[in-house]
Amino acid sequence: MKIEMEKLIAHLKSMGFVFQGSEIYGGLANSWDYGPLGAELKNNLKQAWWDFFIKKNPYNIGLDTSIIMNSKVWQASGHVGNFNDPLLDCKNCKSRWRADKLIEEKFLDLNVGGWSDTQLEDFIKEKQIKCPKCEKCDFTNIRKFELMFKTNQGVVEDASSIVYLRPETAQGIFVQYKNAQRTLRKQLPFGIGQIGKSFRNEITPGNFIFRTREFEQMELEFFFSPNDSKDWFEYWLNQVQEFLDNIVKISKENYILREHDKEELAHYSSRTVDIEFKFPFGIGELWGIANRGNFDLSQHQKVSGEDLTYLDPNTNEKYLAHVIEPSVGVERLLLAIFCQSYKEEKLDNGERIVMQLPVNLAPYKIAILPLQKQQIDKSLEVYEHINKNLNIACTFDEKGNIGKRYRRQDAIGTPYCITIDFDTQNDNCVTIRNRDTMEQERISIPDLNSYLKNKLS
Amino acid sequence: MKIEMEKLIAHLKSMGFVFQGSEIYGGLANSWDYGPLGAELKNNLKQAWWDFFIKKNPYNIGLDTSIIMNSKVWQASGHVGNFNDPLLDCKNCKSRWRADKLIEEKFLDLNVGGWSDTQLEDFIKEKQIKCPKCEKCDFTNIRKFELMFKTNQGVVEDASSIVYLRPETAQGIFVQYKNAQRTLRKQLPFGIGQIGKSFRNEITPGNFIFRTREFEQMELEFFFSPNDSKDWFEYWLNQVQEFLDNIVKISKENYILREHDKEELAHYSSRTVDIEFKFPFGIGELWGIANRGNFDLSQHQKVSGEDLTYLDPNTNEKYLAHVIEPSVGVERLLLAIFCQSYKEEKLDNGERIVMQLPVNLAPYKIAILPLQKQQIDKSLEVYEHINKNLNIACTFDEKGNIGKRYRRQDAIGTPYCITIDFDTQNDNCVTIRNRDTMEQERISIPDLNSYLKNKLS
Repeated sequence: MKIEMEKLIAHLKSMGFVFQGSEIYGGLANSWDYGPLGAELKNNLKQAWWDFFIKKNPYNIGLDTSIIMNSKVWQASGHVGNFNDPLLDCKNCKSRWRADKLIEEKFLDLNVGGWSDTQLEDFIKEKQIKCPKCEKCDFTNIRKFELMFKTNQGVVEDASSIVYLRPETAQGIFVQYKNAQRTLRKQLPFGIGQIGKSFRNEITPGNFIFRTREFEQMELEFFFSPNDSKDWFEYWLNQVQEFLDNIVKISKENYILREHDKEELAHYSSRTVDIEFKFPFGIGELWGIANRGNFDLSQHQKVSGEDLTYLDPNTNEKYLAHVIEPSVGVERLLLAIFCQSYKEEKLDNGERIVMQLPVNLAPYKIAILPLQKQQIDKSLEVYEHINKNLNIACTFDEKGNIGKRYRRQDAIGTPYCITIDFDTQNDNCVTIRNRDTMEQERISIPDLNSYLKNKLS
Repeated sequence: MKIEMEKLIAHLKSMGFVFQGSEIYGGLANSWDYGPLGAELKNNLKQAWWDFFIKKNPYNIGLDTSIIMNSKVWQASGHVGNFNDPLLDCKNCKSRWRADKLIEEKFLDLNVGGWSDTQLEDFIKEKQIKCPKCEKCDFTNIRKFELMFKTNQGVVEDASSIVYLRPETAQGIFVQYKNAQRTLRKQLPFGIGQIGKSFRNEITPGNFIFRTREFEQMELEFFFSPNDSKDWFEYWLNQVQEFLDNIVKISKENYILREHDKEELAHYSSRTVDIEFKFPFGIGELWGIANRGNFDLSQHQKVSGEDLTYLDPNTNEKYLAHVIEPSVGVERLLLAIFCQSYKEEKLDNGERIVMQLPVNLAPYKIAILPLQKQQIDKSLEVYEHINKNLNIACTFDEKGNIGKRYRRQDAIGTPYCITIDFDTQNDNCVTIRNRDTMEQERISIPDLNSYLKNKLS
């Protein structure tokens, strides 16, 4: 069933997952905040990534570098001067557009990634591509628009104090690669991962949280010897799929692997595969796995003058490590999870919206529902036990009739509801309802620990 | 024992806790990155805060708002126009100084928080306070220096596109207060917390990670009825101390409570208590607990025109909630933990540096050390079991003699080392060494699970 984005967004807002940023001030273009449930889900997702890619992977270590770095970092990485969008203005209605997007939205099969400005301009003229606003085809030449946010640090506001908000977390890893390797005494191959905010002054952000100017990345840079015979690209492509399949439970039918062809590859990359998700608004990049060779380390070595080579203790050779980069945006992966989880179901006695979130990501694993006021004390006891002693995220809801409370927990993706009722005081049992099957079981309170442990692990 | 900051910083760098930001480019003034061990410790600290203040507190919920917000937010909050430092230049040597700091560093007992610019200027002249650089006393008048980082969002760079990097996470909470309350159907009293980066273009950052321009906050805004008879200020002051005492184990003798006196209080605050830590460079603010009244909500209500009042379901009254704000900086708390944990110890056979980190915060809880090459396979088995099955952060080290490996684990704060030796294959036992007592115990491998569970919980 194809879902409508408007319905999904309305649902996420009304349930406390995602709010429009600065909403009481009329918002801020394409800015989104995460409500109480979205914040928990996002935390769970980041922790799942960190556990899988950093803590439990035998090769990798973590890192946490600053958003604002020395500006020379962005000269070395090629972002200053090269990281920009090709913009043109409609001479008739004065609206501003990205030349590449104008073409790609008209010719859906075309990928103009590697085209020069002149190629883009000529193609637009030749095919008479019209301004989407006023339908005229009369544009200015392309002007480059810098994608990095610029600010000034220190007391003086001039060129010397310009600093940038990082457009990617990757460069922080390259800049501290040597420090991390040396202090942790790592030998190749090993990887460094980090999670953090990045900023791009996109001219066309959009599709809800798919592309926003402020976003969060989970990036891994995996360093290995160019002589290493193991195909590390395949290894990481498999690891990413294992994470998608088994940890965040993205269904295989909802994503595809797309190999970049020669023209599309960045000049330094020998191979790039995008994992693309079938979003309701079209297929979009979810996760990129790129072989970056030694491009980044050699650039930083050149510009900084620091020796970034690795002395191989086995061969005594000195060389620059090569790099595979699996990189994913937190919000994009979150959006895929939202899209896949959101279900509208017809029932015998009505209908329901259910978020079929994987148990490990759900904001609450359990909801405790006293059937009536008389059971509140006993219910709070069970709630405290599960939330504090068992350390399982648990919510409590005593308001409204039980059917509505079940619907609400379905709508926020709580896998299990535990109802305490009249009989509980006699048989010391509770009713446990499964979110997906809506089936109910009667379980004795002393058995709860092992029941929950079993269901939630 | 008073520690030297230089020694601590050198230790944290050499062990992979904290690196100078952009170091290979000569750094960036007062910018620090967190190495592999620092990143784990920081994550553990943030998670401990989130667990205690959000997940396990019966009143509170979480939130995650954007760093860049609509600029009207900062007009309402008073940051635009009022959030600045009083700077003056030395006419002789042209160096630039903060007037308030010039005074306070000369007169240590003086707090000039509420003074006007004229008062500051007059005092400097009267007391003939000298320029710390050239020792002359001839300054310009005070000029206000804006503390918020400014940038432009969108395609046009003019006044209309100016946005700010948030100088505090608190305002994100106030702006989304109504959305969070309504969608989670919360009744007063309740709190909203969030963790995130903030930015202040400080003129005098310093003391390592004590004051940096980019930093991370853990803020809680607790909303309650002005008619509520419970003393919520006392409640939160106690909760913060419980967290310090029992969760991150800051020793009571290392901090003091300082009540703000009338002149020092912000105009909207009826009470503020700072928890101050005895840092090696002096006493410094660690955690602030402030009663902010309804100042923030009333400002946002006025400027946005949105109704932010709460309709009390019990009394049918409409009013603006009052707010208690316990707010702490991640890096500052981390620094306190570093300072308290770092110990240089004389031993019978030499000396050692040990980081006595609380178990829950230590980057690794366990180190697995094969005594010799022959035990590597068995050791990896134990390592995999603890790291993957038991989900306990664990490291593996087979390099160098056992004494040096113990020292290294002491130096990074690993509470327990498990050594697999010759006898292990016969008696199926391992040696467990305690970081703090350096005592060793022989434990059979089948008993490891329950032993570790007991020690680490």
